[in-house]
Amino acid sequence: MNINNLHKRIEKLTATEPGQPVRLDRWDPAEAGDFTKQDAAPLSAENVQALDELAYRLYAENTRSLLIVLQGMDTAGKDGVIRHVMAGINPQCAAVVPFKRPSDEELDHDFLWRIHQKVPPRGNIGIFNRSHYEDVLVVRVNNLVPQPVWEARYDAINHFEKLLTDGKMKVLKFYLHISQKEQLERLQARLDDPTKRWKFCKSDLDSRKQWDDYRRAYEDALTRCNTKHAPWHVIPADRKWFRNLAISTIIRHTLEEMDPQFPPAEPGLENLKLI
Amino acid sequence: MNINNLHKRIEKLTATEPGQPVRLDRWDPAEAGDFTKQDAAPLSAENVQALDELAYRLYAENTRSLLIVLQGMDTAGKDGVIRHVMAGINPQCAAVVPFKRPSDEELDHDFLWRIHQKVPPRGNIGIFNRSHYEDVLVVRVNNLVPQPVWEARYDAINHFEKLLTDGKMKVLKFYLHISQKEQLERLQARLDDPTKRWKFCKSDLDSRKQWDDYRRAYEDALTRCNTKHAPWHVIPADRKWFRNLAISTIIRHTLEEMDPQFPPAEPGLENLKLI
Repeated sequence: MNINNLHKRIEKLTATEPGQPVRLDRWDPAEAGDFTKQDAAPLSAENVQALDELAYRLYAENTRSLLIVLQGMDTAGKDGVIRHVMAGINPQCAAVVPFKRPSDEELDHDFLWRIHQKVPPRGNIGIFNRSHYEDVLVVRVNNLVPQPVWEARYDAINHFEKLLTDGKMKVLKFYLHISQKEQLERLQARLDDPTKRWKFCKSDLDSRKQWDDYRRAYEDALTRCNTKHAPWHVIPADRKWFRNLAISTIIRHTLEEMDPQFPPAEPGLENLKLI
Repeated sequence: MNINNLHKRIEKLTATEPGQPVRLDRWDPAEAGDFTKQDAAPLSAENVQALDELAYRLYAENTRSLLIVLQGMDTAGKDGVIRHVMAGINPQCAAVVPFKRPSDEELDHDFLWRIHQKVPPRGNIGIFNRSHYEDVLVVRVNNLVPQPVWEARYDAINHFEKLLTDGKMKVLKFYLHISQKEQLERLQARLDDPTKRWKFCKSDLDSRKQWDDYRRAYEDALTRCNTKHAPWHVIPADRKWFRNLAISTIIRHTLEEMDPQFPPAEPGLENLKLI
């Protein structure tokens, strides 16, 4: 399928409108448009293959970069996206940065200090598995800082992302949208599989109890940090195959629009014969 | 094929003896033992698949790490190893670190300062594309520091690698061994392919003129920094398929010996039912 047509169909199901409030109940987490699982497999595979080639050209060109932010509740599929969408890319051209609980040293700085250090350098794709958005999500829901502190962060994030994109960086932000019911099934699946049980923390159940608080915090983050330069996509993520198709399509389309080029060779090499 | 048998056959062709001088003329760069290109393809593919699973277990276990150092002359195949051996690994579990010409800030520190910052954290595989060894290779060959300075570095490297391996890190070092003739062909191939010509620098031809100096510098590095805790392998690399088979076998065998385990689950989860 033509990537532009595919992209248009995916945008209809996932795009948000900067400046407009994001209401998550407008998206069905099980949404898949008129795609079927069978259509999706070859399309996603083609996207993943194209991403490898595009990432290599971005790397060779070495003037621009791409930052991909993955956010979502526990089990929403952040790790799954990394495995299924990003794993085909030459690791020389891309890096995954997981943001966990900040260290003491990191807490001794402003909340963007550790983030800024990890943005992708020229030529590279950076994938943030969680991000600075945690500082207006988990931090807000659990009152880890006073309200005026987290309130000020939305603007700070917008200015920060503007700085990045004023340089030569593109920023794509994905909110992986799952239902409470799907999360319960995925948590149970972790418990039932001895090779996945280690991933389960009893504290996951506490976050589950805060579902509505998280949802409000996400809606605020998606509304207040939804700019033309760094827009959010809401990715219906109950169906893993649709999630992978949507994200691979959006990243591929973005890179195709950037259209990175192999840099020119040094002059005078065209007819050079060494042998 | 049983990985232990395969590993024994590869070790015979690539292992060095810590404490003994490494003489590179003892290895034919076109060596492939009694492997054929046809044997090698499925064996390498099986290794690459196993590496993905092993890397994931190392990541889950989250107590140990693996550092892979890739060194070799221009065109020796460092990038090729990353693409063909490492690219199957979930990028969440592994990171490539390229070491280029040091920055001014890096030069204001000792030569291991920038290296130490980039070693893989617990649970991760780090792949160094070039490394601290450049400080006894390009730096020595081009007299970028006085001889007493680079002379002191061999010991410093051994102590540094001891520190790493006294912790929970395994270190594997690969010297990709190509012939001068093969390098000439690969450089010509870069010139002939418009999508590869950008990789060619005229200065590559200067390094080529220093071939014998580099070879002596490599022999010294391989001899003086060849310890039980961080041994070198000499990988005959004129045949890319043998290079990939050898390196994938050694990494896989190392990880199988480490035998990383999924961590135990929190107590009391075995029969927990959420639904």
